[in-house]
Amino acid sequence: MFFRTKNIKLSPIKQMELLASKIPDVVSLAQGIPSFDTPEIIKKAALKALNRGVVAKYSLTYGLPELRETIEQKLAEDGMHYDFEKEIIVTAGSIEAITATLLTVIQPPEAKSHRVKNEVILFSPSYASYPEAIKAAGGRPVFANLIEENNWQIDFKNLIKKINSRTAAIIICNPNNPTGAIFPKDDLLKIAEAAWKKKIFIICDEVYKDFVYDSTAMGAPDVQKLKFFSLAQIPELRKIIIRVFSLSKVYAMTGWRIGFLHSDEENVSEIVKIHDSLVTCAPVISQYAAIGALDFADKEVGTFRTKYQERRDLICRHLDDLPNVFSYQKPSGSYFVFPKILKLKNSLRFALNLLERTRVAVVPGIAFGPSGEGHIRMSFGRSEKDINEAMKRIKDYFVSVDGSKGKASNL
Amino acid sequence: MFFRTKNIKLSPIKQMELLASKIPDVVSLAQGIPSFDTPEIIKKAALKALNRGVVAKYSLTYGLPELRETIEQKLAEDGMHYDFEKEIIVTAGSIEAITATLLTVIQPPEAKSHRVKNEVILFSPSYASYPEAIKAAGGRPVFANLIEENNWQIDFKNLIKKINSRTAAIIICNPNNPTGAIFPKDDLLKIAEAAWKKKIFIICDEVYKDFVYDSTAMGAPDVQKLKFFSLAQIPELRKIIIRVFSLSKVYAMTGWRIGFLHSDEENVSEIVKIHDSLVTCAPVISQYAAIGALDFADKEVGTFRTKYQERRDLICRHLDDLPNVFSYQKPSGSYFVFPKILKLKNSLRFALNLLERTRVAVVPGIAFGPSGEGHIRMSFGRSEKDINEAMKRIKDYFVSVDGSKGKASNL
Repeated sequence: MFFRTKNIKLSPIKQMELLASKIPDVVSLAQGIPSFDTPEIIKKAALKALNRGVVAKYSLTYGLPELRETIEQKLAEDGMHYDFEKEIIVTAGSIEAITATLLTVIQPPEAKSHRVKNEVILFSPSYASYPEAIKAAGGRPVFANLIEENNWQIDFKNLIKKINSRTAAIIICNPNNPTGAIFPKDDLLKIAEAAWKKKIFIICDEVYKDFVYDSTAMGAPDVQKLKFFSLAQIPELRKIIIRVFSLSKVYAMTGWRIGFLHSDEENVSEIVKIHDSLVTCAPVISQYAAIGALDFADKEVGTFRTKYQERRDLICRHLDDLPNVFSYQKPSGSYFVFPKILKLKNSLRFALNLLERTRVAVVPGIAFGPSGEGHIRMSFGRSEKDINEAMKRIKDYFVSVDGSKGKASNL
Repeated sequence: MFFRTKNIKLSPIKQMELLASKIPDVVSLAQGIPSFDTPEIIKKAALKALNRGVVAKYSLTYGLPELRETIEQKLAEDGMHYDFEKEIIVTAGSIEAITATLLTVIQPPEAKSHRVKNEVILFSPSYASYPEAIKAAGGRPVFANLIEENNWQIDFKNLIKKINSRTAAIIICNPNNPTGAIFPKDDLLKIAEAAWKKKIFIICDEVYKDFVYDSTAMGAPDVQKLKFFSLAQIPELRKIIIRVFSLSKVYAMTGWRIGFLHSDEENVSEIVKIHDSLVTCAPVISQYAAIGALDFADKEVGTFRTKYQERRDLICRHLDDLPNVFSYQKPSGSYFVFPKILKLKNSLRFALNLLERTRVAVVPGIAFGPSGEGHIRMSFGRSEKDINEAMKRIKDYFVSVDGSKGKASNL
């Protein structure tokens, strides 16, 4: 039989989780899962909806009006102005929003038009599911390399070279997964200007925007007061900006599959058709939980942020103990660190060996694009205990095979 | 900007619901939503999972192993043997399963291979979301007409004529939405034989299989004892059969977005890649609810079935009172009736006028394929009160404009 999917991989992140799930006593720093349970206040909102008997039925395809109003308000607080009736779709997490958008804007060669717009530019390294989602939607991923030496920032010249008449969209994950880098406003505006001229969509994936640790990273003295910059804040750009958000990370709700996208009505009225074909509507109990999260869980998010910052510092201290095994750029946001494996290139082999010999799961860097090769992604969304245990096992292993400070080439 | 979706419609069912949601005092027989709340025993399973703190995190992409084991058992009871580890995917409802499958098996013309397999055969009339899902996946819907006079049964010769080298799949909805017809085993086997020879997938959508009312419809004397026939029961066919099921209808769980698909491992290992790109995993709280449903809610399903049969008889009696407005085939399964509008062809105009003048929402038949034109779909999944009120309004309207028995031409 024929399968269109032969060139698509099941995300290596999920593959590592599958492998890890079969190993007893494994410690996983692989998938980006918060260690926390969903806050009580959110669970209570879900529970109340359950008891009120309002979760049994489909919501409207766009999502519950009450939730969309809440989202409209929340966005307005962040300087983004979108009409809940026509410009916001509640989705089954951000990946559904991204894939629905790609299925809307990618024009494969078979269309009768002379125009082909099947290329989607994404950074290397960035989120492993993008290239697979692009291929699933009939598109071609085009990687623009980030500069590791410059803390994984954008190589603007390299990016511009990748734009051509076939470019349908650019995906920007900010803060970036897996590097934890934050892209500055000026760079984003430069990209937007280039995209605007060529009528190219920008998909802004900002699911880690609430986990930003260094005020300096965004050129401001006080991160708590700092407003995260999003291209969706610029009204003149709304025709090309499709912003995607998920409650998964910020509210420890990955299992609930709830997120949203927003853009100009013209775009949203097209994307909603695909959204309808993918899931009809987002899960309704999760929509009620989301209302609780957006309305009442700011304090919990603050707690998570503080914890993740401590964990970032913790994992970095551990990495500092292995200077002959890894080098790394300190992440400014997200809950990932993306160390370079010294003296070894094959990240998949490294990750598989690490899993086998230390029962620690990490994601091979190659999963995040060609320039991710030679790195691994470690999540510090996991608990301090897991981080300490994982790093202890790694250290013990390298010390045992190589004396004091180990070498990656032993794996 | 370019949108691939310009030729896709937001499902007319959802459009009618959107219109209806803006009209006060509307009675909707449009969307296929059970009137019942999700049974307590299922809600309790969700609640317990919530309290145990196990719903926050992603499940494996395939779904919770515990749920897949439950599904494997349940399928085995119905004579379908599939391995929970590799042959079952838990999905965000059946539409996600269908679209993921289509995105896997449709080969659009741009592929470098000489083979193009972009046609998907579906019955007319059948579920309105199929053609839109096919188009979303880059395919071309090819309609095979059902025979209204023969209680909407399959026109086998017509179907065979539609098969060619470009055919990727055939979708069979059984019991069929919107007609409520059940296709007999012999016909299904004939289709499977033809599909097998040409290496064509059959997607079996059986979400209404538990709502079957007439034992005679399947040639057996006692419907309670009758095993519903599925092509997925034939082991020799497993390489081409992809069976889709949803808990939405049978357990009154449309809002939970939970269902599953099963097939041979070769197929499932490809579809799971797309599933991962669409939703990562099905909502986890819904997966726990599903375990409760499959394990403990058989009794409730029996109650629903009895109620729906009473409602079918009720709505049919109402339709019998309007012999100059509608003719209809009595449905043997599902919770839809698909009356023909006498003396009027334009079903969209009829439905819109009906909504405006009587505040009753139904779905125009054209939504279900070309041969659905001239009909409307009414759901008797809604409550007796709604059915009575809707039919009273319709009767009052036709009587007021046309004396005793009304004519459709007045709308």
